[in-house]
Amino acid sequence: MNDSLRLPRQIAAVAELRREVAAARREGRRIGLAPTMGALHEGHLSLVRASRAECNLTIVSIFVNPAQFAPGEDLDRYPRTLAADLEKLATCGTDVVAFVPGAADVYSPNHAAWIEVEGLSGVLEGEFRPTHFRGVATVVLKLFNMVAPDVAYFGQKDYQQVAVIRRMVADLDVPVEIRVCPTVRESDGLAMSSRNAYLSPDARRRATVLWKSLCLARELVASGERDAEAILGQMRDVILSAGDVEIDYVVLADADTLEPVAQIAGPTVALVAARIDKTRLIDNEVLLP
Amino acid sequence: MNDSLRLPRQIAAVAELRREVAAARREGRRIGLAPTMGALHEGHLSLVRASRAECNLTIVSIFVNPAQFAPGEDLDRYPRTLAADLEKLATCGTDVVAFVPGAADVYSPNHAAWIEVEGLSGVLEGEFRPTHFRGVATVVLKLFNMVAPDVAYFGQKDYQQVAVIRRMVADLDVPVEIRVCPTVRESDGLAMSSRNAYLSPDARRRATVLWKSLCLARELVASGERDAEAILGQMRDVILSAGDVEIDYVVLADADTLEPVAQIAGPTVALVAARIDKTRLIDNEVLLP
Repeated sequence: MNDSLRLPRQIAAVAELRREVAAARREGRRIGLAPTMGALHEGHLSLVRASRAECNLTIVSIFVNPAQFAPGEDLDRYPRTLAADLEKLATCGTDVVAFVPGAADVYSPNHAAWIEVEGLSGVLEGEFRPTHFRGVATVVLKLFNMVAPDVAYFGQKDYQQVAVIRRMVADLDVPVEIRVCPTVRESDGLAMSSRNAYLSPDARRRATVLWKSLCLARELVASGERDAEAILGQMRDVILSAGDVEIDYVVLADADTLEPVAQIAGPTVALVAARIDKTRLIDNEVLLP
Repeated sequence: MNDSLRLPRQIAAVAELRREVAAARREGRRIGLAPTMGALHEGHLSLVRASRAECNLTIVSIFVNPAQFAPGEDLDRYPRTLAADLEKLATCGTDVVAFVPGAADVYSPNHAAWIEVEGLSGVLEGEFRPTHFRGVATVVLKLFNMVAPDVAYFGQKDYQQVAVIRRMVADLDVPVEIRVCPTVRESDGLAMSSRNAYLSPDARRRATVLWKSLCLARELVASGERDAEAILGQMRDVILSAGDVEIDYVVLADADTLEPVAQIAGPTVALVAARIDKTRLIDNEVLLP
């Protein structure tokens, strides 16, 4: 860390955030929002850079949203690295504000209003985490209402999350543009994720099978294969080759509706979720974009 | 109708509405929204007048929201009186715009995102109309996002609706002020409602028992009665005296949470719902405000 870099301004209170954004808007500045749960990595920073490229003020929210964790999930041990996060944001340049609310700033004790995105929220991740996307959609709408950004930035890594948010924005007429930034990967292809910190060195090595299975799918499609089950069978073999891995799903789905396809005809996304040791990882790749 | 009054400007497309509002906001004008389903009566017009008193542009939305009607309810026969509505709005003065979207402007065929306000939506009206408030909350949030009003106006006649909307606005950080205007009544006390048009002359006469029961509750409380069941028993007697009336509920509830109270201690609201012939009517009165 370069000591000469100034840490970004940090705001905890919604009222102060609103004043900051309103002042920027009065000056005609374009506002970008990158919602995060902290434990920032290059994937997050790519969102911040994308925002800085087209906005004049970038709000990076850092909030580990309890509503998107189910009981028994990793809410308590989710990595919280605020000091390091702020230093990383400092490397992204100026006009970046960190919005770091406390849990009490976000949810009142009698919180009762939830966004339900039917259909999209119940499949894939939703089968394993039934209340996850309700928590995601709700906190994202809250952040949109707190910040009132012109543009909001999300990573393609969370493909289904993006689909849920796009649907929410369209259905509820939320006046924000959604930008999706490519998944940022480690040099061996593993998608960057704050949860990679949970992986033991051995599990970390084996975790590359997710990306390998997606590359295989891409190659098979490029070579003319269109039968989903043929592709999925080979993908599963690649993933299981890691040993001591449990597959939650391996699916080829319509890139918009996320409905599984039997034959690849139009834009299709390959989505995988697996547990390596006890760490649940997801990844995806668009085929025939 | 005075022929010299100019009808309000009428907008159907969301994009045009947004442009109109954005232009007004650039001029520093304060924007009010009065959401209605049309069939305007003095209750609605009181919202418009309240908005004109503190805003510089008033949007009156007129949209019979299918999502708040259940199958078998009165969506098809709900009164639609646009020409008369516009003439009534013309009497309210200038700076009023009627936003009259078509159903296709509001809901896409694959609409999937809904606002659920737990608790408040399930009691009272929610027991008889389980999907009603989900439809109300969703369309109101959509209208808020389309119009981006500074202030929105609702009638106290729909007391539970106001409670649901207030909860939604607070929980989802929607940047709008909610104003509640007093129920406007006919000279004999019947709360104005677009559904009063369904009443036969005989049912119309008998419908005054709702208001009479609320006045009785107010008098009993004023005279020191604090036992809810004692008050409710007498309210029911008044309503049933109309003959051929079916009570859905008569409740004394906490004015904020809408939870029934056994003893009146703090702010309490009396809420009644009954069907006279086949017309379902609701009314309410705050006791000990």
